Amino acid sequence: MKITVLGTGEGGRLHAAKLSELGHEVVVGTRDPATTLARTEPDMMGNPPMSEWLAAHPGIALLSFGAAAAAADRLVISGIDGASAVNALSGIKEQLTGKVLVDYGIPFNYGVSGPHPWPTPWGSMPTFAVLDSDSLGEQIQRALPNTHVVKAFCTQEQATVVSPGDFNGGDHTMPISGNDPEAKAAVVDLLKSYGWTDILDLGPLVSARGQEMYSHLHSAIGFALGGDRRFGLKVVR
Amino acid sequence: MKITVLGTGEGGRLHAAKLSELGHEVVVGTRDPATTLARTEPDMMGNPPMSEWLAAHPGIALLSFGAAAAAADRLVISGIDGASAVNALSGIKEQLTGKVLVDYGIPFNYGVSGPHPWPTPWGSMPTFAVLDSDSLGEQIQRALPNTHVVKAFCTQEQATVVSPGDFNGGDHTMPISGNDPEAKAAVVDLLKSYGWTDILDLGPLVSARGQEMYSHLHSAIGFALGGDRRFGLKVVR
Repeated sequence: MKITVLGTGEGGRLHAAKLSELGHEVVVGTRDPATTLARTEPDMMGNPPMSEWLAAHPGIALLSFGAAAAAADRLVISGIDGASAVNALSGIKEQLTGKVLVDYGIPFNYGVSGPHPWPTPWGSMPTFAVLDSDSLGEQIQRALPNTHVVKAFCTQEQATVVSPGDFNGGDHTMPISGNDPEAKAAVVDLLKSYGWTDILDLGPLVSARGQEMYSHLHSAIGFALGGDRRFGLKVVR
Repeated sequence: MKITVLGTGEGGRLHAAKLSELGHEVVVGTRDPATTLARTEPDMMGNPPMSEWLAAHPGIALLSFGAAAAAADRLVISGIDGASAVNALSGIKEQLTGKVLVDYGIPFNYGVSGPHPWPTPWGSMPTFAVLDSDSLGEQIQRALPNTHVVKAFCTQEQATVVSPGDFNGGDHTMPISGNDPEAKAAVVDLLKSYGWTDILDLGPLVSARGQEMYSHLHSAIGFALGGDRRFGLKVVR
């Protein structure tokens, strides 16, 4: 399949590499490919320049968001950060029409002022743009009514998402939310190809609120365990 | 030990019964004992009248919030609902001075208007009074600076909290948050006496935000699994 990943952050790269390894034709989308390719320094999260990453992953193409979205047969994974996602995706809504868009962004207010004390390695814990009465997933769905939005991937570590079996024997739970059963079935197939055996359909996209709001607990667990200790969430039942 | 449970809801009753079974001297606190005892109908959650419950649990006393808090040797469990907790506890701050207060409330805005669509058995999903920049646990701590507040119990089903071993062999995780290490140690002892074997200290009370915000995901999981299916959360690591 021709699958598109939007965004060049750590999560996007992990998905792109995994999908390519699984034999798919992978296209990565970025806002401005020329600018992305011209960078020679690691990004703010410490990821090496994208040009280096692409050289190490021959066969993966870097295109603009719109061209990348248009290239997908059906499945598009959005790794665009939560603060930019609605805007960036609204700009390519035509290219995403009829497609399945998997969103794993958290609607953090990066850079918004206000006291958010959280004595952690981060120094502070981000606040959210939307929370208990809306979610980023629902915002994207409203902005792109002809695209099938599925919320997934955001309740586990990125490395676990693409390779669940590498950690704890793969015994963790992946919740998914979305309004379209066929779109969710496509995401379930993707997750199974990654190695997931415990996938929990939470129901309609409104349940994305719960997935997104969980991120503070996820961060707190990570801080408590220490930066290098891997962990995952299992819904025992 | 003489242990106090504030509140006569399902959670409070479960703790009181369990603590009594474990051999503690248990006092339950309520706003107005005469009013509570006069009720002859089940409460809004379907719990039988408290007078019936007390008759079935001889040895457990029902007192006012203040008298109940004063009666505790050290440990007080607050099962007061999130919307009322700060107010009710502020009124008995003298009786709680120097004690360990375990809070498991969620700061839901019960009854606050506004559109909160959530197609569930509840009809709607409550919004929160505080979220990503504060928590009920921190509010209580600020209101009662001479009490050691510990946030716990709110990320698992109430029946699992008091009897973890009754379900899934007890293999689930209990996160706790609090600023005072000795107070947390007292709560860890309590949890061990309940049967908990996997207790995760998240660190300072600011991490209560994560515990409280998780409640939407907890509800979504419950709705997805169906009302009667028990579940719990395990932090695999």
